[in-house]
Amino acid sequence: MPSIAVCLSPELARLQDFRDKVAVVVDVLRATTTMVTALHHGVKSVLPVKSVEECRHFQQKGYFGAAERGGKIVDGFKLGNSPFDYMTPELAGQKIVFTTTNGTKTIHAIHGTDKIIFGAFVNLKAVAETLTRLEKNVVIVCAGWEDEVNLEDTLFAGTLLDRMVPAFYPTGDPAILAHQLYLRSEGKLSVILEDSSHMRRLRKLGLQKDIDFCLTLDRYNCVPEMVNGEISL
Amino acid sequence: MPSIAVCLSPELARLQDFRDKVAVVVDVLRATTTMVTALHHGVKSVLPVKSVEECRHFQQKGYFGAAERGGKIVDGFKLGNSPFDYMTPELAGQKIVFTTTNGTKTIHAIHGTDKIIFGAFVNLKAVAETLTRLEKNVVIVCAGWEDEVNLEDTLFAGTLLDRMVPAFYPTGDPAILAHQLYLRSEGKLSVILEDSSHMRRLRKLGLQKDIDFCLTLDRYNCVPEMVNGEISL
Repeated sequence: MPSIAVCLSPELARLQDFRDKVAVVVDVLRATTTMVTALHHGVKSVLPVKSVEECRHFQQKGYFGAAERGGKIVDGFKLGNSPFDYMTPELAGQKIVFTTTNGTKTIHAIHGTDKIIFGAFVNLKAVAETLTRLEKNVVIVCAGWEDEVNLEDTLFAGTLLDRMVPAFYPTGDPAILAHQLYLRSEGKLSVILEDSSHMRRLRKLGLQKDIDFCLTLDRYNCVPEMVNGEISL
Repeated sequence: MPSIAVCLSPELARLQDFRDKVAVVVDVLRATTTMVTALHHGVKSVLPVKSVEECRHFQQKGYFGAAERGGKIVDGFKLGNSPFDYMTPELAGQKIVFTTTNGTKTIHAIHGTDKIIFGAFVNLKAVAETLTRLEKNVVIVCAGWEDEVNLEDTLFAGTLLDRMVPAFYPTGDPAILAHQLYLRSEGKLSVILEDSSHMRRLRKLGLQKDIDFCLTLDRYNCVPEMVNGEISL
């Protein structure tokens, strides 16, 4: 029976053995939700980069640049980290270069996996089906917030884990912790997340609409995967 | 109103601002439970050191040496990390030098606090009363297991936090996560901890008696504190 582990923050990624496993990267608010949304709406690929400078560099090479820091679009960019930015037909078929506060850093903390896929509540069911089909050991890697453990990604990990048991078995205390958080939520995501730091941060920025979108289950039936440094379907 | 934060692992300690705060170090299974027990039973002080070599060094200087690695007493030492080792009159008035897998490492990860005290389920009420009296901002620092987040220390953090609200307010997602884990447990510690990695590790070593002891609430009315590198009452 394959196992399912949880890495609660990129800061803890060095403690994981990723070899031959499938990594599911999650940054619910909002990077992976936005990636899934963009690719569903026809974006060709997403190139995650660490710095705003790299983002500018690829923008000059013909990519559409998307840059977010602290929840806001970086000056000089038209696209940020809101899923609603990516529903326009203008972006269909385009390549995006994307830098976000926590999401891209998380990808770069993963080494040696068999496969890296991207999950959020909006594609939860599709991710669960993919993992079931692959039948390999899984690590869910939470992006957190500036290296700290956060609630929404931990809750996603617990929710996904709940869909995978008993065909997969949870391994390690962080997996049990995430699952208990899900069981405590009784499926009411927003109740548990009411006091989360990032929810409050986004709400202050007037992004309640984004939050509601990010907490919707199973909106899209697609699973982004990273191949040769770029993310596509 | 003072705040109460939770650091889920020493690996995440660099993300905390400890200045002017009271740090509560917890390593439920078993280092802090054992320290509290030892001091309650008359041990004069406990000197935490990182390595077995340092432990030997201080043993030669007249300390009673206690060394544990991976749940077992290190060869050449008579004392390990079981609270039952420390209930003997032979140790009353003695100074102990102590090295454990995770506990001492955690202490060394804390910098700049106003005060460092030590908590476990066995002295939960006494710790809560001390914090209430001090009226300062608090960080609960979980020892975890080999830098990974663990269940029992997170559950302790949530239980202590539950005793402190509403006079203290939880700050940051790890604090909310720990509190939700406590609320999920509904006060039944052993149910939540049933599958914890370290419980299983200790059980394999035949230490169920130690586990039961470590999960007993409010057995001792004392709060160890670190002063000039040594821990005493």
